[in-house]
Amino acid sequence: MKIPQKISVCEVGPRDGLQNEKTLLDVDKKVKFIDNIQNAGIKIIEVGSFVNPKAVPQMADTEEVFSKTKKMDGVEYRALVLNARGLDRALQCGIKKVKFTLSASRSHQIENANHAVEDIFKKLSELSDIASQNHVVLSGAVSTAFGCPFEGVVSLEKILSVVERFVEAGITEISLSDTTGMANPRQVHRTCLEMRERFPSVLWSLHFHNTRGMGLANVLAGMEAGVTRFDASLGGLGGCPFAPGATGNIATEDLLHMCEEMGIETGVDLDRVIAAARSLGDWVGHELPGAVLKAGKTGDLHRRCAKNPR
Amino acid sequence: MKIPQKISVCEVGPRDGLQNEKTLLDVDKKVKFIDNIQNAGIKIIEVGSFVNPKAVPQMADTEEVFSKTKKMDGVEYRALVLNARGLDRALQCGIKKVKFTLSASRSHQIENANHAVEDIFKKLSELSDIASQNHVVLSGAVSTAFGCPFEGVVSLEKILSVVERFVEAGITEISLSDTTGMANPRQVHRTCLEMRERFPSVLWSLHFHNTRGMGLANVLAGMEAGVTRFDASLGGLGGCPFAPGATGNIATEDLLHMCEEMGIETGVDLDRVIAAARSLGDWVGHELPGAVLKAGKTGDLHRRCAKNPR
Repeated sequence: MKIPQKISVCEVGPRDGLQNEKTLLDVDKKVKFIDNIQNAGIKIIEVGSFVNPKAVPQMADTEEVFSKTKKMDGVEYRALVLNARGLDRALQCGIKKVKFTLSASRSHQIENANHAVEDIFKKLSELSDIASQNHVVLSGAVSTAFGCPFEGVVSLEKILSVVERFVEAGITEISLSDTTGMANPRQVHRTCLEMRERFPSVLWSLHFHNTRGMGLANVLAGMEAGVTRFDASLGGLGGCPFAPGATGNIATEDLLHMCEEMGIETGVDLDRVIAAARSLGDWVGHELPGAVLKAGKTGDLHRRCAKNPR
Repeated sequence: MKIPQKISVCEVGPRDGLQNEKTLLDVDKKVKFIDNIQNAGIKIIEVGSFVNPKAVPQMADTEEVFSKTKKMDGVEYRALVLNARGLDRALQCGIKKVKFTLSASRSHQIENANHAVEDIFKKLSELSDIASQNHVVLSGAVSTAFGCPFEGVVSLEKILSVVERFVEAGITEISLSDTTGMANPRQVHRTCLEMRERFPSVLWSLHFHNTRGMGLANVLAGMEAGVTRFDASLGGLGGCPFAPGATGNIATEDLLHMCEEMGIETGVDLDRVIAAARSLGDWVGHELPGAVLKAGKTGDLHRRCAKNPR
């Protein structure tokens, strides 16, 4: 079993987690959320998105959240954008990294960004130029890379068509997103091997939801294919817009816990992350789906019953 | 990624699931549970256990459940026993397969069976003789094989000490049980490779709980190490006696769903299993932790919103 020595975790809870929550957290809580996470040692944080506030009211205050966040050395703050307007807001706000998301599936792209992939493709190099002129790093994310909730199976060709455009536009860091939790480990393994072989200089990361319980199995498959960067959301915050009651992103603390148990370095203080997840659960006002939150760590031992003292 | 062409699933819900439920199902419901499962194509079913009814009242009616179960050709019915008294009840009841459980951890063995491993070892060949004289197949299960909730790490030597006694007693089918969900994929992979190498003629199976979210990742690791038999519980029924709110066994339908998505044959009708899990949720009166129950299958597609009809 080919397993990396260490991995990096990107906390996407402030964006992908909260955007799927009914409860709106105020700016102070969001800032505290980010602060708890960076104090635990997480070095990549997706602080929010610059998207249509009517479509995603949970993210309307991303400018304020980012400006109030205490910036720590060595921590990368990034925000998601879907178009030039979003990029412009990001530039105004002074954030240094932007994740530009395009869907591998045409119908998901239209639902999500109200824009066809082809239209965006035309503007991609323009966006890339604007970003680089403003010293902002543009990374790419391929959403619905492992399945589309409207179209079903997403072919490798469709992923490639997005990745190729990203690479042409000078993007060097690309995330493959299982937006609604449709990936399976065999598919993840094959896709990652193929992508790494075709684009060896790209820095790949994976973004899984635990919608069908395969989240950590998909992480394992990704690690076995040589990927070492994973998105996760504190407590497994969020959900799936198509499945009421379904879980959200893989839980940050569950991912970190699995890695620790497997002897993979994460550079993160798991206990602080678990404490941060507990606070987050209090703020959103409901139980979070993360497993370690409920069960404790494997290393949390129990006392035997008194009835059998020998 | 080395993945088997097909796997076998053993439904342990009627035993391991129900024994951790507060709600006692009556005999008719248990029989219906087993019937739903076998009608869906599951060929191995753990119908109950012959253990102390004061300690595990949920299993007090295993004789009646088994005798009322409609026996289907090609389906293996088995029950769990912890000692000679349990084996005797199994013989009386006419069941043809018995799973004898011993813990790799001394303190867990005493908690669970009120008996030290060493005492049981002495009687193992005796039990094996009784079973074989009565044409009953005795299989072995090593509980706490991947961690003990009281002692923590369980060494390979401890697993081996149980496995060796099983093999000496003529047992040819052995399950490694992650009794309270402490296993991680790397450990599973290493342990299974080691066991298969040392005991190539043993038929191995794996029993995982999803306590820390690693259930399906552990299945993947087990498959990669060549194991093709897995226990699971409908809906992820049950729980963990040491962690209120924690999930139980891996959910049968989640396991089957992952395998189907990966192109691994199971011989089981997933839709019928999901329907059976829904009924079971109604009977126990609470939401079951299985993910596919909430989210639906990956292949269940959604309609796009009317707002973006192009």
